[in-house]
Amino acid sequence: MTVIYQKVALIGLGLIASSMAHAMRAKGLAGQIVGHAKSAETRAVALEIGLCDHVYATAAEAVEGADLVVLAVPVGAMAAIAAEIGPHLAAGATVTDVGSVKQAVIAAVQPHIPANVHFIPGHPMAGTEYSGPRSGFATLFDNRWWLLTPAAEVDATALSRLRDLVQAMGAKVDTMDPAHHDLVLAVVSHTPHLIAYTMVGVADHLAQVSNSEVIQYSATGFRDFTRIAASDPTMWRDVFLTNKDAVLDILGRFAEELFVLQRAIRMGDGDQLFDYFTRTRAIRRGIIEAGQDTSAPDFGRVSASKSTDA
Amino acid sequence: MTVIYQKVALIGLGLIASSMAHAMRAKGLAGQIVGHAKSAETRAVALEIGLCDHVYATAAEAVEGADLVVLAVPVGAMAAIAAEIGPHLAAGATVTDVGSVKQAVIAAVQPHIPANVHFIPGHPMAGTEYSGPRSGFATLFDNRWWLLTPAAEVDATALSRLRDLVQAMGAKVDTMDPAHHDLVLAVVSHTPHLIAYTMVGVADHLAQVSNSEVIQYSATGFRDFTRIAASDPTMWRDVFLTNKDAVLDILGRFAEELFVLQRAIRMGDGDQLFDYFTRTRAIRRGIIEAGQDTSAPDFGRVSASKSTDA
Repeated sequence: MTVIYQKVALIGLGLIASSMAHAMRAKGLAGQIVGHAKSAETRAVALEIGLCDHVYATAAEAVEGADLVVLAVPVGAMAAIAAEIGPHLAAGATVTDVGSVKQAVIAAVQPHIPANVHFIPGHPMAGTEYSGPRSGFATLFDNRWWLLTPAAEVDATALSRLRDLVQAMGAKVDTMDPAHHDLVLAVVSHTPHLIAYTMVGVADHLAQVSNSEVIQYSATGFRDFTRIAASDPTMWRDVFLTNKDAVLDILGRFAEELFVLQRAIRMGDGDQLFDYFTRTRAIRRGIIEAGQDTSAPDFGRVSASKSTDA
Repeated sequence: MTVIYQKVALIGLGLIASSMAHAMRAKGLAGQIVGHAKSAETRAVALEIGLCDHVYATAAEAVEGADLVVLAVPVGAMAAIAAEIGPHLAAGATVTDVGSVKQAVIAAVQPHIPANVHFIPGHPMAGTEYSGPRSGFATLFDNRWWLLTPAAEVDATALSRLRDLVQAMGAKVDTMDPAHHDLVLAVVSHTPHLIAYTMVGVADHLAQVSNSEVIQYSATGFRDFTRIAASDPTMWRDVFLTNKDAVLDILGRFAEELFVLQRAIRMGDGDQLFDYFTRTRAIRRGIIEAGQDTSAPDFGRVSASKSTDA
């Protein structure tokens, strides 16, 4: 493939940025890849494993002369980083981010972006429960969605170029209004994560059931919940703090719905439970048909991990 | 391996029973395998794909002369089946079941078991989101737990023989008190399933977020929730109706805990969220160390399904 950006600056060198580095390198999409991470250890690892051609102790240095700047720090750190790099951005450069929340990132970053720089917010819907510079891999984005939430007045050429990069890294691109993005993500990701954290916390507190038993006999769903609940705490703290309104909305609906089912259990209303569980099956079929998951039993897990049992 | 039971009668021919048939056949553990299913279609499939040597239209016929009878029907159907087969059980036979709840099954089945028959309740903690006679496979139980909850006065030889069968099918065996079993399962499986069903139901109702978007952009956790919520509705209805007390207990704790996190989000208490999310990571590590799941990112999912993202 051909080089799409001459110099890409990755600000933050965690799972997403390191996967981008691997993907861009594997496909020759960037002339040069430089990076910045707050931690000296992370910077040393990034050089050692060849993620970046150069690393810098400050974000301001890293963005000098870059035609693409990727903000890949927790959402809560975006404002400070944007303020730091704003005066150092090259004319005509594109700035994007990979935050899981879009309205809050736009509010934090946009004020610091000069008029001659294109800010195009983005969200790669890909990840694993691991984090850090060693966690990335070149195929992370293969066939995953990468949502862009540009302003209406976005420069069409800059948008098209960023779209080319994202697609060349293997992802599928769609554009979306930032507020709608945040609501959709509250439903499909943020609230489910909070629920998983909560259930794992309940198990942790339950004195009657020793931890070793919870762990030893963990079937799905608890096992799947623990994987979700193992995700990066800083990232998720910031997601909930910055997508507060949408998450609280969905949580309210969730609590109502849960009480309805809880009441059906208490009243012994088997028909209501059966009907509910039958409806939810259809959504799963839709997801498999949409290519968002494998139809292999239990995700195609191997050997030690076949259970989805009761 | 050597034959452990001369004639095994599988009552109910769904995922668990069909997997047992495959596993016993693959390893030569049963002299003969016969079966019963309520549905004529299921019986025809069982013969067609070679699950059983003979199938019978009634459970009473199927158990005649069997030295092992496996009750593999939904928990709510156990009482009627036990009443039907009780008078037809062979002296010295062992009866076991594969229900996900143990106290309710014991209450339903034990009164119908003659004094010269050994009833040893069991629960293979293995499964997939699929059901029916075609869903079974011989390796379903490999390295999974199979819990037995025998009464204190159980016949030691009968227990040892059933244990041998279960281990020969690839499972790990443990024994447990029935009430404790039901509480542990409420934590690690039943309540997580109800929560997953609820979250999928919320998404389904949400008019602002069209179904196609929920499906198209489903990241983990929602995607994982939908898989859990695709499980057999009849089985799960019966689980919640028959393990009511333990599930309502855990649901109450869950709601309390969720409100604490919801309040932290509303109040913007990032430290509380961060501390909570950090604690839950440790439980995940324990599960991987206990060999209950793969440490591969995102379960080692392939291609179309790498996301655990926000």
